[in-house]
Amino acid sequence: MDYFYGPGRNHLFVPGPVNIPEPVIRAMNRNNEDYRSPAIPAMTKTLLEDVKKIFKTTTGTPFMIPTTGTGAWESALTNTLSPGDRIVSFLIGQFSLLWIDQQQRLKFNVDVVESEWGQGSNLDVLAEKLAADRTHTIKAICIVHNETATGVTNNLATVRKLLDHYGHPALLLVDGVSSICALDFRMDEWGVDVALTGSQKALSLPTGIGIVCASPKALEATKTAKSVRVFFDWNDYLKFYKLGTFWPYTPSIQLLYGLRAALDLIFEEGLDNIIERHSRLGKATRLAVEAWGLKNCTQKEEWFSDTVTAVLVPPYIDSSEIVKRGWKRYNLSLGLGLNKVAGKVFRIGHLGNLNELQLLGCLAGVEMILKDVGYPVKLGSGVAAASAYLQNNIPMIPSRI
Amino acid sequence: MDYFYGPGRNHLFVPGPVNIPEPVIRAMNRNNEDYRSPAIPAMTKTLLEDVKKIFKTTTGTPFMIPTTGTGAWESALTNTLSPGDRIVSFLIGQFSLLWIDQQQRLKFNVDVVESEWGQGSNLDVLAEKLAADRTHTIKAICIVHNETATGVTNNLATVRKLLDHYGHPALLLVDGVSSICALDFRMDEWGVDVALTGSQKALSLPTGIGIVCASPKALEATKTAKSVRVFFDWNDYLKFYKLGTFWPYTPSIQLLYGLRAALDLIFEEGLDNIIERHSRLGKATRLAVEAWGLKNCTQKEEWFSDTVTAVLVPPYIDSSEIVKRGWKRYNLSLGLGLNKVAGKVFRIGHLGNLNELQLLGCLAGVEMILKDVGYPVKLGSGVAAASAYLQNNIPMIPSRI
Amino acid sequence: MDYFYGPGRNHLFVPGPVNIPEPVIRAMNRNNEDYRSPAIPAMTKTLLEDVKKIFKTTTGTPFMIPTTGTGAWESALTNTLSPGDRIVSFLIGQFSLLWIDQQQRLKFNVDVVESEWGQGSNLDVLAEKLAADRTHTIKAICIVHNETATGVTNNLATVRKLLDHYGHPALLLVDGVSSICALDFRMDEWGVDVALTGSQKALSLPTGIGIVCASPKALEATKTAKSVRVFFDWNDYLKFYKLGTFWPYTPSIQLLYGLRAALDLIFEEGLDNIIERHSRLGKATRLAVEAWGLKNCTQKEEWFSDTVTAVLVPPYIDSSEIVKRGWKRYNLSLGLGLNKVAGKVFRIGHLGNLNELQLLGCLAGVEMILKDVGYPVKLGSGVAAASAYLQNNIPMIPSRI
Amino acid sequence: MDYFYGPGRNHLFVPGPVNIPEPVIRAMNRNNEDYRSPAIPAMTKTLLEDVKKIFKTTTGTPFMIPTTGTGAWESALTNTLSPGDRIVSFLIGQFSLLWIDQQQRLKFNVDVVESEWGQGSNLDVLAEKLAADRTHTIKAICIVHNETATGVTNNLATVRKLLDHYGHPALLLVDGVSSICALDFRMDEWGVDVALTGSQKALSLPTGIGIVCASPKALEATKTAKSVRVFFDWNDYLKFYKLGTFWPYTPSIQLLYGLRAALDLIFEEGLDNIIERHSRLGKATRLAVEAWGLKNCTQKEEWFSDTVTAVLVPPYIDSSEIVKRGWKRYNLSLGLGLNKVAGKVFRIGHLGNLNELQLLGCLAGVEMILKDVGYPVKLGSGVAAASAYLQNNIPMIPSRI
Repeated sequence: MDYFYGPGRNHLFVPGPVNIPEPVIRAMNRNNEDYRSPAIPAMTKTLLEDVKKIFKTTTGTPFMIPTTGTGAWESALTNTLSPGDRIVSFLIGQFSLLWIDQQQRLKFNVDVVESEWGQGSNLDVLAEKLAADRTHTIKAICIVHNETATGVTNNLATVRKLLDHYGHPALLLVDGVSSICALDFRMDEWGVDVALTGSQKALSLPTGIGIVCASPKALEATKTAKSVRVFFDWNDYLKFYKLGTFWPYTPSIQLLYGLRAALDLIFEEGLDNIIERHSRLGKATRLAVEAWGLKNCTQKEEWFSDTVTAVLVPPYIDSSEIVKRGWKRYNLSLGLGLNKVAGKVFRIGHLGNLNELQLLGCLAGVEMILKDVGYPVKLGSGVAAASAYLQNNIPMIPSRI
Repeated sequence: MDYFYGPGRNHLFVPGPVNIPEPVIRAMNRNNEDYRSPAIPAMTKTLLEDVKKIFKTTTGTPFMIPTTGTGAWESALTNTLSPGDRIVSFLIGQFSLLWIDQQQRLKFNVDVVESEWGQGSNLDVLAEKLAADRTHTIKAICIVHNETATGVTNNLATVRKLLDHYGHPALLLVDGVSSICALDFRMDEWGVDVALTGSQKALSLPTGIGIVCASPKALEATKTAKSVRVFFDWNDYLKFYKLGTFWPYTPSIQLLYGLRAALDLIFEEGLDNIIERHSRLGKATRLAVEAWGLKNCTQKEEWFSDTVTAVLVPPYIDSSEIVKRGWKRYNLSLGLGLNKVAGKVFRIGHLGNLNELQLLGCLAGVEMILKDVGYPVKLGSGVAAASAYLQNNIPMIPSRI
Repeated sequence: MDYFYGPGRNHLFVPGPVNIPEPVIRAMNRNNEDYRSPAIPAMTKTLLEDVKKIFKTTTGTPFMIPTTGTGAWESALTNTLSPGDRIVSFLIGQFSLLWIDQQQRLKFNVDVVESEWGQGSNLDVLAEKLAADRTHTIKAICIVHNETATGVTNNLATVRKLLDHYGHPALLLVDGVSSICALDFRMDEWGVDVALTGSQKALSLPTGIGIVCASPKALEATKTAKSVRVFFDWNDYLKFYKLGTFWPYTPSIQLLYGLRAALDLIFEEGLDNIIERHSRLGKATRLAVEAWGLKNCTQKEEWFSDTVTAVLVPPYIDSSEIVKRGWKRYNLSLGLGLNKVAGKVFRIGHLGNLNELQLLGCLAGVEMILKDVGYPVKLGSGVAAASAYLQNNIPMIPSRI
Repeated sequence: MDYFYGPGRNHLFVPGPVNIPEPVIRAMNRNNEDYRSPAIPAMTKTLLEDVKKIFKTTTGTPFMIPTTGTGAWESALTNTLSPGDRIVSFLIGQFSLLWIDQQQRLKFNVDVVESEWGQGSNLDVLAEKLAADRTHTIKAICIVHNETATGVTNNLATVRKLLDHYGHPALLLVDGVSSICALDFRMDEWGVDVALTGSQKALSLPTGIGIVCASPKALEATKTAKSVRVFFDWNDYLKFYKLGTFWPYTPSIQLLYGLRAALDLIFEEGLDNIIERHSRLGKATRLAVEAWGLKNCTQKEEWFSDTVTAVLVPPYIDSSEIVKRGWKRYNLSLGLGLNKVAGKVFRIGHLGNLNELQLLGCLAGVEMILKDVGYPVKLGSGVAAASAYLQNNIPMIPSRI
């Protein structure tokens, strides 16, 4: 019936795609519709207005593109830049690496600032580069807000401060794929020019919408950006926005209704409460890791991610065995270590529509797996550490008080 | 959108209705159909054949009645007995009590054998009654296999032995609502004459089908049973079984497809593996209770239930506060103490399509709740005890090896 | 994948179970919940209040019983009457016959007033009986509002007038299974004492809820009604209504949410608009039948049903062949002729959440089937006749004007 | 609850997105999963194998890209061509026009062969161009198999013949968006180098997968194609195909399961039977149009499309009023006239999982709308003409014989 059926619920703790709440699954459980009827534009209008709130922007223009995060990246770059443009880009893990690879293949001149995996983006080097760039050859700074491969959150406020300090006009392009709607993100306040996420991350939908939000400055940049683009061209959207029909090509009806439901749930819970919840989940996970006597791949507390924790395993253990074991014995899906940290880390994704008991079930599972693979963990230790924190910090569910 | 929405998944640990597996929800996600077309009879035929397997019977005749467990009880009684008939019935908790109440209101002469709540049915008294009943005035023994209110499993094999020992022809009517398809149940081997369950229990469906299975002797009894019955009359079903159209009145199309999917999953996992899984879940729960320093409402190990655990709380705690707290703070649904044990026990249901990590999440939640309400639990202790057992005993998921 | 798959949509035109609207299917697409949490009672409360509106009663008390129409019948009878009570009951087709059969098996003294199938209930005979019954031996009048087997709608207002005229205190029990929420039905105005319907009829849900509504006089009658009842006993409900927990046994969570969505749609469309829509669908169907040169099984216009049309076929045609052909060739589900009219009529159900183009597709299908089986129909003739009427009478969809 | 709710089913007759069969909706009704677990690759493998069958290719390599038809176009072009490459492209309606616009914006040198809207691609001009192109400056022929705006099907076999006749090595790129899996399409036999479709067309899924199939020659061309591409780059897919993980970035889990179910249904019906069914639906629609006294926008029978019919309205009627009226009064969704034929044609889409009675309901609706807007149609005339043909030609449903 299913591929590789196992009893009970799959415990999904990869950092995307994440658990979809039941009301959203319900909202998407529908037939197709004519997207040129009045219904879809009427709904789309509310979506475009509401989706801005998760970016914390009032001045940005959102695009909901039928694509993935990779496509959203491409859209951000090609709409604002021209081949040969100099970009400063930070390499701190697999996803920043993939974005840089894209930037290079799109023929930009990428100035890569590399850090050890597990560290945040090196903003000292950024400062140097900005200071040195008197003639403003740098056209854009590309930074991943939260590197999903290593569980590192970069400090965007500092990036903005540096740009302002040096009076540098470079565009600030931010991959918020595993941050937006889960971590504190402030597009307007931080002067982000393009921010983007994917529907299958903190929005807790299926894959299929790359959401890109452009500042007025980014929109202005499209006028001179010479990168070749058609499918990803914002101008096609803007043309249809003006017409009030909104869609240059066929959107997924199901995802639009799903996004409507997802946003309704988000506003019901409250965006700041969601960010708080992720903070709790992140903190609890890190306490468990510590209790297990394991190290976080993320090297400093300032970079700790509240949406994904990459856990380093001792050299005598292959972390991919942990992931396999989770799936084969416990119906638990954990994230693999990727590329440079393959075999060395496994990842616990704790983003999206997820609550504390779900996480504790996962942590209990990880403990048993660790024992399975020969790591001398004290069973219950991680859960105990996480619970001690959570029991003090979980709020009552507002609707149920 | 939902009533009292809370983020993440609801952790459903009441002993029914229980978690429905996703493939079953999918199977029921459908429009109505003409139940007189060839499709529904064709499917019904497979259901009637397959549903017998969960009763472990080859000689029984199953009836899938659009009703609840209460209706299934009524069907079992009115089809086999006449008003005034003497029944021996065991009162050991709220559900046996409700069944006895029904028996009395249906005008049977009920010989109630009461035990303290937390004990199993007193089979010594049964032995005495059978021994004394030389003229076979006892027409039926009514017994709840698993008393859901106290987490007590009765020993049906012994009941059969006693009946055989005394050569007593009384019918053996068994409420298997919270046992069949989760606990070891053997209709043919134990000479059960009527066994019944509800779709929302171990079958892991929505409420709506009362499944009753009748032995040849029970079917024979219908010929003389004078209890008034129409909706619950097996003869109406038998008439339509012969016609090959199967349904005397409209069944729920959705539940039939759901049952088909549920049975497919059950056979894929294997009924004996399911019983093993429940044994693991029950054992793990009891180990946690013990680690918390709390008592099981069930007084002896021989009666321990693998589908529900009723936990006694200290006198200074109101167990209903625990249930409320679970729902209000942790999105965890536990079972209340009922009637005589109201305020004194809370119940952890661990039946149906459920795996170990789900249970561990629940146990972690119970620990936090216990702390919330002032019980000096050591956080993590129950999870540790349960995990230690589970890590040694969970098998690999067969499809994933 | 499906049993007997055919491409495209199944055209469901049996008079129940009927087409479920997509928003209702969506609402039911959900996991189980604890029915003792605050959510289910909170929703149940709104359902009990709102369901009264489809009965057009403010003084009635509704019961939403997990059963079918047959169970709802039994509930109506056993809660208000005692064995041996004299009932006047009208036999005009298969469903009134089945109800009478139930009345007899429940040991009432049934005074059957039979009419030819295709005629309405003989109210002249009722008048005679009431006139003759000076001592009020008649305890109840049982009447099917709309006989689904023949497409006959009885005149309930006249029944009430007769009862009033003779000052007769008999209870008026009405089977509204294929009428309520589709035909004009006025519980309070017509002094109906018990009215009932099933979820799978005009409410357009799956089978599974028998909705019974009792007048204050009917509730009063329960106090003396000696019929044995437990599962169907209203008092168990009333007890739980008072407690505010509403359910004496486990309801179907899915059907409750479905009913909530169904009622929301009903009120959005407007009950009177729904009745109007059924009137259009009925009229259009009858015009088509006329255009085909066939006869309506219903003998007089005053009895024409707006929810189902039973069509008489010429003697050289077996109407069951028409039904088979519909299913085998056109993915069209029509109703069989039952019992006395088996082979002689086929039925077009036009009740529930259905619009005019769906009906016209069905009528076009019936025309082709008629030709298939050798009836010299002029293809398009029925559709033309129906369209001519509909094109003049279909209102604009209010939300889309 | 819904935007602009109307009772009954929406009659969806736009040429995409089209009606999704219920089993496919069910298959997609699921939570997310880890796409790096063994389950998704195992399923993906079957999809890649099976999807080739709908292209009728054994040598092609398919790519299932998370995008729309527009993205699939872009993928076809950028993977095989370099900026400045000469393309011969046929402009015969809105969709060929949009593809040409894309080709131009992607910096190809597009040699546009324009025809009057309503005519097929001018293959005489193609012959001339091929004859003249001794040095093979033409790198690709781009042709829309079925122009959705005008209901014109081009003759691809002739295109192949011409290429072969002139021994011309140009790539043959085919937009099969509204043809593949509905019309006769033979990738291998016709030597098509890239063919593409979208999930929301004949596959009858939601929007979200652009399916592109490349011949060995097209794959070879990627090695020299200099168009900038990342998201749409086939090489990223090929790399992951070799790894056996298949996905360079996150696919939609739901659409993959949906595609699996869709393909299962397609093979159950049989691809050639599906093409036959579309042929019936197309023919029936055209007969109705003729009966109404209206003209087909398609000027010659050889170009008639079996997936969409564009109907010309008399000059005194605005065709967009017909579409509006359908939606506002009959819950019927028809296609607008686009661009040059705006106001002049309305379109009946008859592709995807659709049966004859659904179409007849639509045709009955169109008749009433025509009357509404003042066209002197004889009600029933189109249905009669269509039915006369269909009643002779619809086969029995194989599974039901």
